[in-house]
Amino acid sequence: MADEEVILLDFWGSMFGMRVRIALAEKGIKYEYKEEDLWNKSTLLVEMNPIHKRIPVLIHNGKSICESLIIVQYVDEVWHGKAPLLPSDPYQRAHARFWADVVDDKMYDAGKNVWATKGEDQEAANKVFFDTLKLLEAELGDKPYFGGDSFGFVDVALIPYYSWFHAYETFGNFSIEAECPKLIAWAKRCTEKESVSKSLADENKICEFVSQLRNKFGIE
Amino acid sequence: MADEEVILLDFWGSMFGMRVRIALAEKGIKYEYKEEDLWNKSTLLVEMNPIHKRIPVLIHNGKSICESLIIVQYVDEVWHGKAPLLPSDPYQRAHARFWADVVDDKMYDAGKNVWATKGEDQEAANKVFFDTLKLLEAELGDKPYFGGDSFGFVDVALIPYYSWFHAYETFGNFSIEAECPKLIAWAKRCTEKESVSKSLADENKICEFVSQLRNKFGIE
Repeated sequence: MADEEVILLDFWGSMFGMRVRIALAEKGIKYEYKEEDLWNKSTLLVEMNPIHKRIPVLIHNGKSICESLIIVQYVDEVWHGKAPLLPSDPYQRAHARFWADVVDDKMYDAGKNVWATKGEDQEAANKVFFDTLKLLEAELGDKPYFGGDSFGFVDVALIPYYSWFHAYETFGNFSIEAECPKLIAWAKRCTEKESVSKSLADENKICEFVSQLRNKFGIE
Repeated sequence: MADEEVILLDFWGSMFGMRVRIALAEKGIKYEYKEEDLWNKSTLLVEMNPIHKRIPVLIHNGKSICESLIIVQYVDEVWHGKAPLLPSDPYQRAHARFWADVVDDKMYDAGKNVWATKGEDQEAANKVFFDTLKLLEAELGDKPYFGGDSFGFVDVALIPYYSWFHAYETFGNFSIEAECPKLIAWAKRCTEKESVSKSLADENKICEFVSQLRNKFGIE
């Protein structure tokens, strides 16, 4: 597949973009990374994702694929020979899709509400955040990865949030490891994989970015 | 597969449940239908879907699968020999998943806001509703079905809303056919299939149900 053209429209701090970076790295796919300015989106982004106008967008031989979990499944289906992300058994596939969906349904809002609120609202947000993490930790149980012994779809869906944990802890004034040690052990296990470590944003840079967002939105 | 046990926990008026009924009918799967009382959920439902505690739930040989689009994909993967719902090409699969996701993202809220509001709020809701339908109609274009020449995943995702159209028209005081004739022609085409016609709820019964909900919520 030497003449494949693969382009990723992305934003460095996006947990959704990081999912796609990890999937492409797991498969060993070379691609052109194009950074988007979220406050001044490129014509290419709007053309390639006219419905949502948001990153990540994968452009494969001129055709665009949008929405991070749909892109990850696409990558897994096209380059199925290496590092399968979804299991082959239909029930296990449905189970993985269900938990990736739970991550999508809850994690972004739970995390954002930690750094974008203060006072009593933040106390409530912190509780929802830990309820969400504990739900995910219970599903992980004593397994090395969400799908069992190998890194897979749910891990790809969730691990990008790990690069935001330092920001959540800083602005939420809590320790995640103290409450969810198994989840942190899982996250560290994931970051031992080069596909993950090279795809995640720097946690200090995320923290600085969130600080800027809080200033922008007048939350101090 | 004569000794398969397939049970569907469902609610007669649910557009999400109807998706699963259509998928099972397309595949010719016999199953036990168990009606749930949404205001007094069964122990079985809570046990089988402890995270969301909502229908539909498919129980296949004792294992539960939750969330309608995940169930439809599961049914398509397990009984793949007949009436494929997702295309085999990865790009076409991603495209179908994207549009089913757009339906999930927009249609339920767009419809509910039509019947659950009044006055200026309803005028705004009606506009969003038609923006959504026109977006979907543009994607359909002149194709017989969303995926092309055969009934598939996006059709399964959207057609259950057709049984709610009469209620949206009654309480929103508009005609969908006048604005979106191609979408209505598509819906009528879908209902010519027995798998669809026998799975959709009666539109008058839905209208009466919505009228009861409006009374319950004090919207008159």
